[in-house]
Amino acid sequence: MGIKVHGIPHGATLRVLATLHEKEIDFELVPIDMKTGAHKQQPFLSLNPFGQIPALEDGDLKLFESRAISKYLAFTYEENGTSLLYKDGKKMADLAVWMEVEAHQFDPIATKLNYELGYKLYLGMETDNAVVEEYEAKLAKVLDVYEARLATSKYLAGDSFTLADLHHLPGLQYIMYNKVKRLVDERPHVSAWCMDILARPAWGKTRALQNDFN
Amino acid sequence: MGIKVHGIPHGATLRVLATLHEKEIDFELVPIDMKTGAHKQQPFLSLNPFGQIPALEDGDLKLFESRAISKYLAFTYEENGTSLLYKDGKKMADLAVWMEVEAHQFDPIATKLNYELGYKLYLGMETDNAVVEEYEAKLAKVLDVYEARLATSKYLAGDSFTLADLHHLPGLQYIMYNKVKRLVDERPHVSAWCMDILARPAWGKTRALQNDFN
Repeated sequence: MGIKVHGIPHGATLRVLATLHEKEIDFELVPIDMKTGAHKQQPFLSLNPFGQIPALEDGDLKLFESRAISKYLAFTYEENGTSLLYKDGKKMADLAVWMEVEAHQFDPIATKLNYELGYKLYLGMETDNAVVEEYEAKLAKVLDVYEARLATSKYLAGDSFTLADLHHLPGLQYIMYNKVKRLVDERPHVSAWCMDILARPAWGKTRALQNDFN
Repeated sequence: MGIKVHGIPHGATLRVLATLHEKEIDFELVPIDMKTGAHKQQPFLSLNPFGQIPALEDGDLKLFESRAISKYLAFTYEENGTSLLYKDGKKMADLAVWMEVEAHQFDPIATKLNYELGYKLYLGMETDNAVVEEYEAKLAKVLDVYEARLATSKYLAGDSFTLADLHHLPGLQYIMYNKVKRLVDERPHVSAWCMDILARPAWGKTRALQNDFN
């Protein structure tokens, strides 16, 4: 049967693809034609009733929500490739905290900024500079907390690269292509962490998939 | 040392308090004076650098983000009270999906509606009816998916009450006090699920804590 990822090598799907590459798991990427709204129609809706990519099939198991999929892969294929988790309960609790931080503190802000400064340009729409200013200030505050954290540990949830770091990759990647990059560059520990995790071979392989889909 | 919950018996803190009651774990609720902004100052910032409640101390372990705390409690005190988890890997994967659904599909919409229809009235501010209309339509779509799901299983992640259900309790509780309740009432399976989980004794004990804090 093998593993099938339904999506495109952009946005949230990248979390799943990066996890599969870190875990050295073979998979098939089944492209979803977003332009024709294939994700809002059957058969995709049987994979995710909310009509959002990505979705995953592993044998008869069907999953959606990128972070739930990455957790499933990290736990189920624990022995493959990079660990991405901790065995210790207290370290796992800390990892869970920083996964929630990515989802609730970082991602909504990064998504908004990347939409204003990237996707809107791609669509030929005008950037709303007031929104950019508001969300740049919010991101600066979040990155101040990251800077303090990364001054005491190499990665967000301790000394190993885990899902807490990996989940940031799509948002960080887009930020490094727009003017918000400055907020990363100004913070030495955030900058070093960002360079480190974006340079991971598994992320390189993930991004290489984009060449086939442009 | 014992377990200390820093927060107030409202909003996200309720997730942690409900989990502790389900797990039958003794704890101390350390109130945070939101009016004087105690959550934005030391010593609270040493518990959560983002300055948001709740935070938890369990011996020397310090955690924040309500859903990370509830997961920590459910895994660490697995043998206490209600299980809230599954032992089977595939069922846990499904549980992870529905926890993400709560966090990304349900909660942002419920929070927006409860702010407009509840908290704004409490603050003497005017409800923005256009926002309410927009988010009611969004919530209706989400609840349509829940209705289909709950037609095939008693709870969101299968036949047992789990964290995926529990995490909805604060948002659902507030919804049942405003006009959005109609969207629940119109959907028989959602309505039955909602009544069932709001009637849990652990939730009753959690809500009883509010009497001391009003």
